[in-house]
Amino acid sequence: MVNQRRDSGWQSGKSDSSGNNSGGESSKESSRSSTPVLDVDRSDRLRDKMRRRMESGDRWFSLEFFPPRTASGAVNLISRFDRMGAGGPLFIDITWHPAGDPGSDKETSSMMIASTAVNYCGLESILHLTCCNQTKENITGYLAKAKQRGLKNIMALRGDPVGDEWEEEEAGFNYATDLVKHMRSEFDDYFDICVAAYPTGHPEAESYEDDLRHLKEKVDAGADFIITQLFFRADTFLKFVDDCRALDITCPILPGIFPIQGYQSLRQLVKLSKLEVPEEITQVIEPIKDNDAAIRNYGIQQAVEMCRVLLDSGKVPGLHFFTLNREVATMEVLRQLGMWIEDPRRPLPWAVSAHPKRKVEDVRPIFWASRPKSYIYRTQDWDEFPNGRWGNSSSPAFGELNDYYLFYLKSKSSKDTLLQMWGEELKNEESVFEVFTSYITAQPNSSGHKVMCLPWNDEPLAQETNLLRDELEKVNKRGVLTINSQPNINGKPSTDPVVGWGPPGGYVFQKAYLEFFTSSENVNALLKVLKKYEPRVNYHIVNVQGRDLTNAPEMQPNAVTWGIFPGREIVQPTVVDPVSFTYWKDEAFALWIEQWAKLYEDESPSRMIIKYIHDNYFLVNLVDNDFPLENCLWQVIDDMFELIDAPPEPITNEAVSD
Amino acid sequence: MVNQRRDSGWQSGKSDSSGNNSGGESSKESSRSSTPVLDVDRSDRLRDKMRRRMESGDRWFSLEFFPPRTASGAVNLISRFDRMGAGGPLFIDITWHPAGDPGSDKETSSMMIASTAVNYCGLESILHLTCCNQTKENITGYLAKAKQRGLKNIMALRGDPVGDEWEEEEAGFNYATDLVKHMRSEFDDYFDICVAAYPTGHPEAESYEDDLRHLKEKVDAGADFIITQLFFRADTFLKFVDDCRALDITCPILPGIFPIQGYQSLRQLVKLSKLEVPEEITQVIEPIKDNDAAIRNYGIQQAVEMCRVLLDSGKVPGLHFFTLNREVATMEVLRQLGMWIEDPRRPLPWAVSAHPKRKVEDVRPIFWASRPKSYIYRTQDWDEFPNGRWGNSSSPAFGELNDYYLFYLKSKSSKDTLLQMWGEELKNEESVFEVFTSYITAQPNSSGHKVMCLPWNDEPLAQETNLLRDELEKVNKRGVLTINSQPNINGKPSTDPVVGWGPPGGYVFQKAYLEFFTSSENVNALLKVLKKYEPRVNYHIVNVQGRDLTNAPEMQPNAVTWGIFPGREIVQPTVVDPVSFTYWKDEAFALWIEQWAKLYEDESPSRMIIKYIHDNYFLVNLVDNDFPLENCLWQVIDDMFELIDAPPEPITNEAVSD
Repeated sequence: MVNQRRDSGWQSGKSDSSGNNSGGESSKESSRSSTPVLDVDRSDRLRDKMRRRMESGDRWFSLEFFPPRTASGAVNLISRFDRMGAGGPLFIDITWHPAGDPGSDKETSSMMIASTAVNYCGLESILHLTCCNQTKENITGYLAKAKQRGLKNIMALRGDPVGDEWEEEEAGFNYATDLVKHMRSEFDDYFDICVAAYPTGHPEAESYEDDLRHLKEKVDAGADFIITQLFFRADTFLKFVDDCRALDITCPILPGIFPIQGYQSLRQLVKLSKLEVPEEITQVIEPIKDNDAAIRNYGIQQAVEMCRVLLDSGKVPGLHFFTLNREVATMEVLRQLGMWIEDPRRPLPWAVSAHPKRKVEDVRPIFWASRPKSYIYRTQDWDEFPNGRWGNSSSPAFGELNDYYLFYLKSKSSKDTLLQMWGEELKNEESVFEVFTSYITAQPNSSGHKVMCLPWNDEPLAQETNLLRDELEKVNKRGVLTINSQPNINGKPSTDPVVGWGPPGGYVFQKAYLEFFTSSENVNALLKVLKKYEPRVNYHIVNVQGRDLTNAPEMQPNAVTWGIFPGREIVQPTVVDPVSFTYWKDEAFALWIEQWAKLYEDESPSRMIIKYIHDNYFLVNLVDNDFPLENCLWQVIDDMFELIDAPPEPITNEAVSD
Repeated sequence: MVNQRRDSGWQSGKSDSSGNNSGGESSKESSRSSTPVLDVDRSDRLRDKMRRRMESGDRWFSLEFFPPRTASGAVNLISRFDRMGAGGPLFIDITWHPAGDPGSDKETSSMMIASTAVNYCGLESILHLTCCNQTKENITGYLAKAKQRGLKNIMALRGDPVGDEWEEEEAGFNYATDLVKHMRSEFDDYFDICVAAYPTGHPEAESYEDDLRHLKEKVDAGADFIITQLFFRADTFLKFVDDCRALDITCPILPGIFPIQGYQSLRQLVKLSKLEVPEEITQVIEPIKDNDAAIRNYGIQQAVEMCRVLLDSGKVPGLHFFTLNREVATMEVLRQLGMWIEDPRRPLPWAVSAHPKRKVEDVRPIFWASRPKSYIYRTQDWDEFPNGRWGNSSSPAFGELNDYYLFYLKSKSSKDTLLQMWGEELKNEESVFEVFTSYITAQPNSSGHKVMCLPWNDEPLAQETNLLRDELEKVNKRGVLTINSQPNINGKPSTDPVVGWGPPGGYVFQKAYLEFFTSSENVNALLKVLKKYEPRVNYHIVNVQGRDLTNAPEMQPNAVTWGIFPGREIVQPTVVDPVSFTYWKDEAFALWIEQWAKLYEDESPSRMIIKYIHDNYFLVNLVDNDFPLENCLWQVIDDMFELIDAPPEPITNEAVSD
């Protein structure tokens, strides 16, 4: 008996449930990676992912976006990446428009959007690049920058000539082939290269056959796969694939799918692409051209039918969607095809990054749980990521706070909305308590607005935190202002829809965690109470001036989330780390001022109240180490309130006075 | 409030139960070790351990041994180290006898015994060293060798001159002070240095005062602490301490305690040490001088009383016992004093080594669980030990098998005893099954002898394995010859007397493990059965020819023992590692021949039976990954037998034929 090792990724909804556990002959020579690899996909390059999917018969989809025009458009697009990323695209790609300064550091540039998708949204991404009218120096500069940003895939395009007349340049970039050759000569095998193809022939090509020969040249120059321009009939694409194969073009050829989403956008696209819309489509569309919903429904139905034919042909390993930066139509087509992952499984409890140097990252401090993009930004200059014990990572410093308010860290809400949620005018500290309580309960505040975010959480309360909602409400009302928490978990299946993560067949665990701001009076009482809970409860209490109290043994990290999987070492992706807490503290306190106090006029009472909290409150984290027992942290807080409420014994200031 | 950090070791039976969890002010500058330190004691040098014990008020004891004369005496002494080490001595020391080739590689040398105690028994050890009549080159050679062997502590002695007349040598070693100075000048601060003292003055000293001045010189030259020669009255020692302190000798001074164990040994010792036995003792002893038991009881009582006075004085941080290589009297004195640890806690599931470079070792393969000394020996040349993920350790090779049958790996039983246990004459494979079954059940074999050991286990069955006894008996009877197993454990307290390890307040977990030899027919059936248990059960099946079948994903190690502790990262001290299994396999198969087959004549039927098993059986390991459920490995074996017993379907040889 010889079991063949089968490396199908478990993350795909389509792969078999045994996933990463596959039989195989071993030998002493087998190398192995130095870190428990939970997700084979994560460590592969795009062309290898495609190869493995094709071998296993798992079909994939991918999504094309164009860069936004405005900064707020960029914030929206990044949110869209997060939402559409959950459906499980194999990759996304970002188009390149020479007129829009696509290689700049502007938040709307193609370069910046693609790099954000890779680094912060964890999406495998392809950056388009056009070479027409560009110097070699420029192109090399763009490619070097892309590489430095963690981009590994380029769609090599000629692009449209600027101006009416186009002339070949001697020793310049005249065709995409020139760009492919340049990339392979300057960057060797670093990039995965995609090239474009026209199923009906390029509109400027002398003939369909001539265009196919050009395509063959591009592939021979070093392209790894092909994405086609849009088309309206499955037959068009399937004939094109046959013609490519006849010419010995063997790489994957992905059909570009364009679900018709409106009359105007179809007309515009047809004009640009110089395609003809088939008679059977115009006949349906012309009569309903003023009914957007009807056209969209037709577009979805037409795309689904065409995709089914393509997939059934056995010649199509994946579908590439031109989204036009919209969600509904593409998601609906994918849902009807059964390719949209409805219940995405998390490889780790936090959102992983797709930057090559972060592929071994398997542990993070819990503090940035609601601000993963900030954590990625502040650690972007680390040379290597802890792939084992967290302790090894104490040396690299966290990035400074000075410029971390990048566009993707800005609140998605406007100043007016924030003022409605957090109060046009604060009367006292209790006004702030009410804001936190409204956020926790999802009930409208006194002026009737729901509090959908806080400076520390730009999203509504996580489903997991819902498990703690009653307790959270009680303590926030009394000024224990919670910004992060997790319940204890004693061995739930890794497939649990709320707290599960990692491959199937495992068990996940958590220690209860609670993090909050609170007054120095409360902290005085808390410190007395905590003596009763040694060594069950670990605490770390800091204020903005640098007062720092902890019972963490030897400043060691405390693992608070871990998982046990078949055939693996223990994975412990989340720690409470006393060293990085001191960096998080700076960020957590700064958010009071930067995101909240600055909504109000200088010297206004509202601003002074937030400033007072910032200057005087403590940031506290608590871990209950006895994860198999009922979480004792609520009892700790109750004991603290009880001590404060007890009339006879006066509270001394001894604890935090020096 | 400022909590002072208190680093008292949790291992001592005396330290408070909160142990390693102590409060403290932290600062960003705090450094921390890169691996979860479970046992602070383990990473400290001896003088720091003493300092911490003194600060916390924990009294310690230590044990002195002399090197044995014969190889079998050495095997016995090493077993004694294991037994007496369990009682919790802070250190042991090994005396140095220039006539006995003490620095050689002979198994009876002081150097070898001390190095074995450190490396294989995990005992902090002091090697005595005498310098009289030695060249500097010799001494430096001994010290370099000691350092290379992992010895960190030296008792610097002058030693007795060889021959009657002793003359000072110019530029030679005339006093222990010269040796101390030499060590500090040649080895800087590497060694912790102990020196000797005579509470009543050295017999050759001009006066008590003169002797004290010499002691002061030794300490000023760089000694870290003092152990005294024996004495009979507490007062003698306490006055001596006062006199030392008056001379500004501030280091720890440990009283040498000699429980009188017999009339002859007392007389001999008195003669050697030129001490006078006080009247009150001779008066008791002379009348009972032929009654060994009475003298020993008196010696115990006298030592206990004297020790109590010493400890009550507050001037004695630890007691040093001259054991004369015996156990009973010293253990009894320590028991009566309440200093003997009756229920030793294991810092890790396996016996740790005290070699400095192994102090960060925190993970080992499970295969050597019953042969830890072999594992230490075969990995002694590794430059560094995995202090995090096991995966990092795949590069260093295991030591070869050629010379690993060191004296401390030999069976403690004689050839005759082994033949009685394992059979004077084997009839067939079933005779071997019976030996295994007798070992498991602790019932006499057919010739009436209990089987107390097997080649793979030189001790009776571990208490933990008792949990599996019924199942083990059943399968061994049918030729599933088990050599290693552990039950699954789903979160028992770390203080559990059977399966617990590590500091208190934690929880320990295990995946069920089973390792056995069995025939190729059984393996054929097993492989079919195992398909039903994917991915729940990981297997690794090898034979001596190198056939190698596993479903370990990417040859990754599987953590099978782990612990969750307050304020710590996850500790995973035991793994099933597919790479090291191939090294263990060589050893496990070799033991059939080396320890069993060779008991019989060449070409004898008994020898041929063992040889047949060696050549044809497979070594199998199985892990049940679903640790929270009932162990399924017995069901796997049952299914295997059921498949074999099923009459209609013939068993094919397909599985292991190629």
